[in-house]
Amino acid sequence: MNLLQLDTPCLILDKKKTKENISNLHSHLRDLEVNLRPHGKTAKNIDIINMVLAGQPGGIAVSTLKEAEYYFSHGIVDIVYAVGIAPVKLDRIVSLIIKGAAVTIILDSIEQVNFVAAKARQHGLIIPVLIELDCDGHRSGVTLGDSLLLDIGYLLNSESGVTLAGVLTHAGESYQCKSVEDIRVLAAVERDTAVKSAEKLRQNGLPCPIVSVGSTPTATFAEDLAGITEIRAGVFMFYDLVMSGLGVCKTEDIAVSVLTSIIGHQKRKGWVITDAGWMALSRDRGTAAQKVDQGYGLVCNIDGEPLNDLIVSSTNQEHGIISSRGGKGLDCEQFEVGSLVCILPNHACATTAMHDRYYVTDGSTEIIDVWHRISGW
Amino acid sequence: MNLLQLDTPCLILDKKKTKENISNLHSHLRDLEVNLRPHGKTAKNIDIINMVLAGQPGGIAVSTLKEAEYYFSHGIVDIVYAVGIAPVKLDRIVSLIIKGAAVTIILDSIEQVNFVAAKARQHGLIIPVLIELDCDGHRSGVTLGDSLLLDIGYLLNSESGVTLAGVLTHAGESYQCKSVEDIRVLAAVERDTAVKSAEKLRQNGLPCPIVSVGSTPTATFAEDLAGITEIRAGVFMFYDLVMSGLGVCKTEDIAVSVLTSIIGHQKRKGWVITDAGWMALSRDRGTAAQKVDQGYGLVCNIDGEPLNDLIVSSTNQEHGIISSRGGKGLDCEQFEVGSLVCILPNHACATTAMHDRYYVTDGSTEIIDVWHRISGW
Repeated sequence: MNLLQLDTPCLILDKKKTKENISNLHSHLRDLEVNLRPHGKTAKNIDIINMVLAGQPGGIAVSTLKEAEYYFSHGIVDIVYAVGIAPVKLDRIVSLIIKGAAVTIILDSIEQVNFVAAKARQHGLIIPVLIELDCDGHRSGVTLGDSLLLDIGYLLNSESGVTLAGVLTHAGESYQCKSVEDIRVLAAVERDTAVKSAEKLRQNGLPCPIVSVGSTPTATFAEDLAGITEIRAGVFMFYDLVMSGLGVCKTEDIAVSVLTSIIGHQKRKGWVITDAGWMALSRDRGTAAQKVDQGYGLVCNIDGEPLNDLIVSSTNQEHGIISSRGGKGLDCEQFEVGSLVCILPNHACATTAMHDRYYVTDGSTEIIDVWHRISGW
Repeated sequence: MNLLQLDTPCLILDKKKTKENISNLHSHLRDLEVNLRPHGKTAKNIDIINMVLAGQPGGIAVSTLKEAEYYFSHGIVDIVYAVGIAPVKLDRIVSLIIKGAAVTIILDSIEQVNFVAAKARQHGLIIPVLIELDCDGHRSGVTLGDSLLLDIGYLLNSESGVTLAGVLTHAGESYQCKSVEDIRVLAAVERDTAVKSAEKLRQNGLPCPIVSVGSTPTATFAEDLAGITEIRAGVFMFYDLVMSGLGVCKTEDIAVSVLTSIIGHQKRKGWVITDAGWMALSRDRGTAAQKVDQGYGLVCNIDGEPLNDLIVSSTNQEHGIISSRGGKGLDCEQFEVGSLVCILPNHACATTAMHDRYYVTDGSTEIIDVWHRISGW
């Protein structure tokens, strides 16, 4: 099957670019002697995660229990559920562990230790726990200076039903960096926070086997990961316009795009109307605060080559409006009604989440596979 | 089952409020003597559309062929596919018509008439077509003053394979109005554009049986719909914060919300962390340009009562941050880790699209039904 025969809008994955993106991060992390723990929340598909895990020690991170259950059903055992634990999640975690999954959870409070330990004891289990650290004020976690770090550590180490597996942090603020140099600085802060927290635990007689950090920007630009045992990243498999705006990748590295049909012209305005609205592209406007605002996505021909300065400037549910980035009208006649273009996404996680499958190419317009995505919780 | 037993995040639908919202618009449109053609793109569920169609002449609008196929499989025959037609859509439209669906399409160019007519003739069919009008510069359509209106009309009337069914317009700019008075003015412009375009066609010997307008804001505040045969609206079934910000509904009329668990506290910052990130709430920031910016949603207790000035101020994929609207910290202790809150959405279409089912209540915390939603194209 060929791209030209697909119903639009739909999601296209360039397998060749995905392989190269994976290989580049593998190579960088090999140089830094740290293991990669891919995050399953971007791909939500086993074929892609298997590409990342090839030649790696194994183990993934997930953002939902649905992902954990799905990946476990496809043979992945070592799973970090990297969102702070709540009581409502525990039955499914227990069920996964009973079935043989090695699920590690994260938390940042004493209350959480208490309800996790109680649940684990009920089932005669021991649940491994990472203490979530806050390295950049992004959202959750314990700061290095907070006495809570040791309080949680002592409790995890003494309480039955739980075990202190280590520490975990995520430099989520790296998405807001303004330069590669800023990302390098933040990567060092992320590492230092994790390594110093691990040292603090160890100095107080507590174990800390796992020291886990990560985000695609900091994984890419980290220069020294001494003391870190694993790095987590997800977006690097596909990249997106936010990442190219940050300097983390080049536009031509972006491996996912949305195929869309031209459905109309507004000649007076120099607009072209497509059938990829926010339902197909997502509402993500992650480049709005960057130097180059890409609207709802950058317009490419079906060979994936960007059409200079054309972006999706506006969306409704099932309509996209293509115009020039500078606000000048475009010559509508260059896009026949019914012809196809591809839209590179602002944020790979958000755009792919709007679709239930990838149409996989190997760099040409030929479809070599269809890979399904999971969704929901 | 009770709300307290649900896995979070998930989507809650208050059936009682939905019924009242539907009944209110029915009553308003009965007074104006115009038929309602509900838009199926918000609910994406037959149970809800059947509630709207009760006591109505029947007929819906849809935004995707998947919706058309789904609703037709549930017995709805009269369907307007209200997105400009592209060649890639025609096989599925033909297939629906052959199975007995009365599908009407829309277009705004001569090229579209040509490829639709050619396809219809191939199959020995006649496809009814509405000319899409541009009443407010929102996105697509022909303006009243454009000679294209008559050109398309003549061609549809003379070409075999197609028939001129009428005109259709959508005042999409009504979402950007700043006052109820502005919406009233726009509703009159929407009506006038449609009625005058219909008159222009008729004065030139062309038929125009259908004169279709609509959007939830203009449907709600239209004062006179003389000459209009049907009004389309979708969001009114649920309403949302954008609609309450516009004055189209009250906050307490909003019938959908996202149930979420508290998963952490950031006491230094006065933040509470939840498991409803943008994956559960959507990236929609429709209230950002309104007088009251509701962030990613307004926080309510599980009885649906807003907790004064608390909003979801920031989201990541599976994390939401609740803080006060004024930027002041909140007292984290009022939300125990593991407790539940409900988030009212900015935009019902976008938030519900992130979920595959509604947990239906009748105004209490008891779950009386689970209704599935379709997605995709």
